[in-house]
Amino acid sequence: MYNFSHKMNKNKNVNYWVAIGNLGIFFTLILVMFWTSDLERKSKKKLMKVTGLVLARCGSKGIKKKNLAEFNGTSLLQTALQTMQNFGKFDNIWVSTDCQEVVDHVNKFLPSVKVHHRGPYTATDTASSLSAVQEFCEQHSEVEAVGLIQCTSPFIQTAWLDDAFKMLILQNYDSVFSVVRKHNLLWEPHEDGIVKPFNFDPSKRPRRQDWNGFLVENGMFYFTRVEIIKQNLLQGGRIGVVEIPANYSLEIDSEFDLKVARSIFKILQNQ
Amino acid sequence: MYNFSHKMNKNKNVNYWVAIGNLGIFFTLILVMFWTSDLERKSKKKLMKVTGLVLARCGSKGIKKKNLAEFNGTSLLQTALQTMQNFGKFDNIWVSTDCQEVVDHVNKFLPSVKVHHRGPYTATDTASSLSAVQEFCEQHSEVEAVGLIQCTSPFIQTAWLDDAFKMLILQNYDSVFSVVRKHNLLWEPHEDGIVKPFNFDPSKRPRRQDWNGFLVENGMFYFTRVEIIKQNLLQGGRIGVVEIPANYSLEIDSEFDLKVARSIFKILQNQ
Repeated sequence: MYNFSHKMNKNKNVNYWVAIGNLGIFFTLILVMFWTSDLERKSKKKLMKVTGLVLARCGSKGIKKKNLAEFNGTSLLQTALQTMQNFGKFDNIWVSTDCQEVVDHVNKFLPSVKVHHRGPYTATDTASSLSAVQEFCEQHSEVEAVGLIQCTSPFIQTAWLDDAFKMLILQNYDSVFSVVRKHNLLWEPHEDGIVKPFNFDPSKRPRRQDWNGFLVENGMFYFTRVEIIKQNLLQGGRIGVVEIPANYSLEIDSEFDLKVARSIFKILQNQ
Repeated sequence: MYNFSHKMNKNKNVNYWVAIGNLGIFFTLILVMFWTSDLERKSKKKLMKVTGLVLARCGSKGIKKKNLAEFNGTSLLQTALQTMQNFGKFDNIWVSTDCQEVVDHVNKFLPSVKVHHRGPYTATDTASSLSAVQEFCEQHSEVEAVGLIQCTSPFIQTAWLDDAFKMLILQNYDSVFSVVRKHNLLWEPHEDGIVKPFNFDPSKRPRRQDWNGFLVENGMFYFTRVEIIKQNLLQGGRIGVVEIPANYSLEIDSEFDLKVARSIFKILQNQ
């Protein structure tokens, strides 16, 4: 005879596990709802608008009209602005310039990008980028934070902008900028034409794998809350960094750099 | 009547100036002789033989058989050795290797270069260049100073080797190596994912023209007296540097660097 009691016991066990399973799903759902509402609350509390900004003055020492130099079939400026548009999280994208050619270029190729006519005092060879960012913020009081992108770093990628954006918006940083890690051994000049080691002991020369190296500002981007900019700082408060791989880190300062950048672009494309 | 006494006085004056002139020439000659003999004496006193050395091991992490990688129609190794031969002031040129392919390559293309069969313990991934230089010097007791050339710096020029050579031979330096000047802003990681400035004040961000920057070892060459190497130092005693222009300073560590180096070679050729 078939043992019904055994079957019933089996069914009881199954029901028992189903009940535990349901309870598990129920608590998981509650936890997920709680976590989501907490995240929303946090986001609502801290969410600020970040304005994308490129400084593109007419004159530049190293390369004539550097920002409009040919790169990847377009210009350095357009390359940067296109990446900013692809990133998609900037509240607005602005170009601050004193250059009619730049205005025409932007209007022609990226009509959704806004143009700020930059005060001439911020566009001299000796004026700092900070002074130009300050002037922009003064004239656009709605700006809460600036994502300053330098179009002389042509290998910028949206993922890194996203990292910086999230750190500023969700992780309580006041400024976030791009760096590259280096493992160089540094030396200081001293009297009588001799040099002394600066960051290591020559009797224990570290190999690359022996230490973490140090971080070098690579100029690709600077995300900063307006309060910090008002304090005359591009980097201030709680300062964080996004680490850019060395192969993508070139900053164009000269005609030579521009040629090297064009070669690197091809090398990276074929990788 | 023609005034003879006037003529005689004039002649007397001429003779007087001729005598002073001769005396001047005489003393100048004595001074030159004295200075030359002093220089010769100094040179004889300090003149030492500098042995050119390239370390070329078989294994390398970044690039397979890096030293034999194609560059400028030849190899990185041959490029370095050719520059050392063109320099012409090394007492001898040696390649220290554990690699039969390197031996064959050197014998084929540069038969006047000598081969040192490197101890396997100096050719591991963790062994330092210093240990390999030490092993070489121990087995070649005639060596007074070493000019270690790294073939991963392919834009080396004889003029810079000459600068280092003269500093070691004539200017009382115990070690001389190559550097590149940088103007980077450096940062240090701290707790809680924040960074702090390392070599500048963010409220006074220096522009390139505002400061002298700092010196970075670029690995192109190291000239060192044997006494210093015996003290377990590649750089020691009175240490001097030769500054290499940034555009010539690339050090090849990876396949990517090698490709960039090949591009830079063409760019520099067309300048």
